[in-house]
Amino acid sequence: MDQKMGRASIQLDAPVYIWDSASIVGKKEGEGPLGLLFDMVGEDDLFGCKTWEEAESSLQKDAVYMAMGKAGVKPEDISFIFAGDLLGQSIATSFGISSYQIPLFGVYGACSTCGESLALGAMSIAGGFADKVICVTSSHFASAEKEFRYPLEYGNQRPLSASWTVTGSGAFVLGRERGKKTRAVITGITVGKIVDYGLKDSMNMGACMAPAAASTLEQHFIDYNSQPEDYDKIITGDLGSVGQTVLIDLMRDKGYDISQVHMDCGIEIFDPASQDTHAGGSGCGCSAVTLSAFILKQLEENNWKKVLFMPTGALLSKTSFNEGKSVPGIAHALVLEQA
Amino acid sequence: MDQKMGRASIQLDAPVYIWDSASIVGKKEGEGPLGLLFDMVGEDDLFGCKTWEEAESSLQKDAVYMAMGKAGVKPEDISFIFAGDLLGQSIATSFGISSYQIPLFGVYGACSTCGESLALGAMSIAGGFADKVICVTSSHFASAEKEFRYPLEYGNQRPLSASWTVTGSGAFVLGRERGKKTRAVITGITVGKIVDYGLKDSMNMGACMAPAAASTLEQHFIDYNSQPEDYDKIITGDLGSVGQTVLIDLMRDKGYDISQVHMDCGIEIFDPASQDTHAGGSGCGCSAVTLSAFILKQLEENNWKKVLFMPTGALLSKTSFNEGKSVPGIAHALVLEQA
Repeated sequence: MDQKMGRASIQLDAPVYIWDSASIVGKKEGEGPLGLLFDMVGEDDLFGCKTWEEAESSLQKDAVYMAMGKAGVKPEDISFIFAGDLLGQSIATSFGISSYQIPLFGVYGACSTCGESLALGAMSIAGGFADKVICVTSSHFASAEKEFRYPLEYGNQRPLSASWTVTGSGAFVLGRERGKKTRAVITGITVGKIVDYGLKDSMNMGACMAPAAASTLEQHFIDYNSQPEDYDKIITGDLGSVGQTVLIDLMRDKGYDISQVHMDCGIEIFDPASQDTHAGGSGCGCSAVTLSAFILKQLEENNWKKVLFMPTGALLSKTSFNEGKSVPGIAHALVLEQA
Repeated sequence: MDQKMGRASIQLDAPVYIWDSASIVGKKEGEGPLGLLFDMVGEDDLFGCKTWEEAESSLQKDAVYMAMGKAGVKPEDISFIFAGDLLGQSIATSFGISSYQIPLFGVYGACSTCGESLALGAMSIAGGFADKVICVTSSHFASAEKEFRYPLEYGNQRPLSASWTVTGSGAFVLGRERGKKTRAVITGITVGKIVDYGLKDSMNMGACMAPAAASTLEQHFIDYNSQPEDYDKIITGDLGSVGQTVLIDLMRDKGYDISQVHMDCGIEIFDPASQDTHAGGSGCGCSAVTLSAFILKQLEENNWKKVLFMPTGALLSKTSFNEGKSVPGIAHALVLEQA
């Protein structure tokens, strides 16, 4: 019954099964290195909608629909949905998933929300509160630029440290029992805390988030008494190339060499040379679609046996940025293993 | 182990104990009918800070500090904190509670967030994932007006159906075992879904939220096979006087008469005749401070034995409002009983 472990971790008594999942992305993501792996690629980033926000809502709606279809479940089979996005008051979620009429827990952890939703979803099953849940998150390049920086019409320039918000949504069906098909299992969780090194550059979010990733990762190693080599991959959400360097350095200072096993979804999803995406992809959707399309596939195909999946989030808003506040970070980690 | 109940409810195997709690409010709330019951009342609504957002962050920080002090616990005793607010990207939370360095689950359910945080907090304990958690939410009149409508300097007029966002924060320490002092216990949860009747008036949020409250309440009665008279009070978060009428009518249509047992935190917290607050108080802080200062006191003093506490939320943003979208609602309910 006691599923606590160390300061900030959870060791699940029984694994929680990821029955199936779905990913939907925008045109640019479809042209990237993972393009052929996504379940659906939009022809343009409005997805037939009138506004960027509506487009992002439709991403969540479609990702949930596809995930349920692939898993062979209906909305009435699902106890709870854990959902969130980056927009103010999470409106992509509010207007995206309401038609399913599934009891909702709204979550917010910036770009770490995919990890947070999977953590709480797995806990609700492992605690005996639900048989099946759905976890869904999304982001959209155009709605995020408008929300956090400038509307696209402004045509602002971006420094090389900036990341490119992924247009996409990933949805996951979790179950207490093994499904007809099971892509992977969740066996452990490490919950992150807010880490603020005082950095204020919203165009270098990788550096802002790396200290939070290092904090959660160190806590995970301590709580689990584990080492980097215990994982086939340690996968952050959207640190990008700048943040990756910072994380590897910070972990080296703490006595851990993760340089051989580290992977970042934001680095994998775009080709910076041909796609002009600078430091890499970011956003709630980045880690979610990469998990669904690429990471779970590696676990299914026996290329990896166990990974630590750790979405990273930058806790900024345009209000806090305009008021001169820093950009704190947070990261939540999940142990994912072969089913 | 199976703690599910019906479509959307949870019956906890063992009660989760509310060890203690704290409330901090602004000047206007201190002058209202519940004024003498709050733990702290600010002299002015900036609370010594430079911006409204910083002021709201300081409310969360102080509420958590007082709740921990009253409960006799330290940050390192707390497994997780479940926290949220109304501002874009939940910045009152991000900049309010980071110094405690407690692993964080950020939650968003508009003004229902107090109920959502308590639900997830109780589940994390009842599932064996934590010994003690803190749940905290906040709102601030000035930061909310700026976030959702107009900055105060604009001096806009408000229709009589409008509510007044409560400046305040309530924090709750939950434990698996009985504490030195225990104010009440959480024994059940009903999780709400998004309900959208297509209403678009952000100056009449009571009417926008009432259908969601009715949905959750009906589901609760079905899942628990209970009736209105099984509760000493059925307490909504911030429907106000307009929303209360709508809820009572909607429930009558569903075959339930709640007119004798219904209470609304938004109606209790202000005196509309002398305080010019129109339909009542609202915001994440409204239900949180009323729960801490007034509702738990009634359970402690044996005036009530069992209540259904159901914070209500209006899922709007200024972006969705400006794009002509409706204001969907959500409500989460908790069964609170004498300890």
